[in-house]
Amino acid sequence: MDRRKFVTSTSLLTLGASVNAFPMDEKKEKKVLVHHAIFWLKNPASVEDRDKLVAGVKSLGKIEAIKKLHVGIPASTEKREVVDNSFAVSEIMFFDNEKDQKTYQDHPIHQQFIKDHSHLWERVVVYDAINA
Amino acid sequence: MDRRKFVTSTSLLTLGASVNAFPMDEKKEKKVLVHHAIFWLKNPASVEDRDKLVAGVKSLGKIEAIKKLHVGIPASTEKREVVDNSFAVSEIMFFDNEKDQKTYQDHPIHQQFIKDHSHLWERVVVYDAINA
Repeated sequence: MDRRKFVTSTSLLTLGASVNAFPMDEKKEKKVLVHHAIFWLKNPASVEDRDKLVAGVKSLGKIEAIKKLHVGIPASTEKREVVDNSFAVSEIMFFDNEKDQKTYQDHPIHQQFIKDHSHLWERVVVYDAINA
Repeated sequence: MDRRKFVTSTSLLTLGASVNAFPMDEKKEKKVLVHHAIFWLKNPASVEDRDKLVAGVKSLGKIEAIKKLHVGIPASTEKREVVDNSFAVSEIMFFDNEKDQKTYQDHPIHQQFIKDHSHLWERVVVYDAINA
């Protein structure tokens, strides 16, 4: 028996086990860029406008560079001084890196989304964060 | 053969396959509550203060109710009018529901974090969003 080959395949087996274990650990930190865009509507009382914007943001999910997308509306958590629940729509995207975020910014689907929906919003604030 | 039992086990098999498939699809929307806290420091130029706050926020990951935690600092994405990169630390947490977010708020580890670190920050803004 070729001993070298045996050792190699044992090492690979060990490596394989570790790699498979990581995606199971939801809290394990993976290096990502989080892009959080928060939208306030021109007509804050219009559920129709909000739903149009929600549908538009969801359509962005087709862009391959986006690894994870959360489209949200204000949660009914406790009202506290620090909590800003005045927004209409929240868009949280996970990218692998800054280059992918730029690919998303320039993507035709994103550019079309802006053309079709920017008349709905009064204000947008964006926070881009990378792992500390 | 009991036909009813046969049908039931086939249905369970199909259900099992679907359940297993979901975690593989990174873009698949799962009902969650996202809690995003953004911190501005009293001493924005102090890397030491920022690192203390980062370490503090990371220590919150021990709280079981938090299903996913991203601790970030401003990314070097394009400077655009809508991008606010004036913050020091970003904390994004995923909870299964509003009850778990409340459990986190009241948790002794979170309360201790506030006692030990609140002197570092000038301002905090929180956005809580649930799936639209």
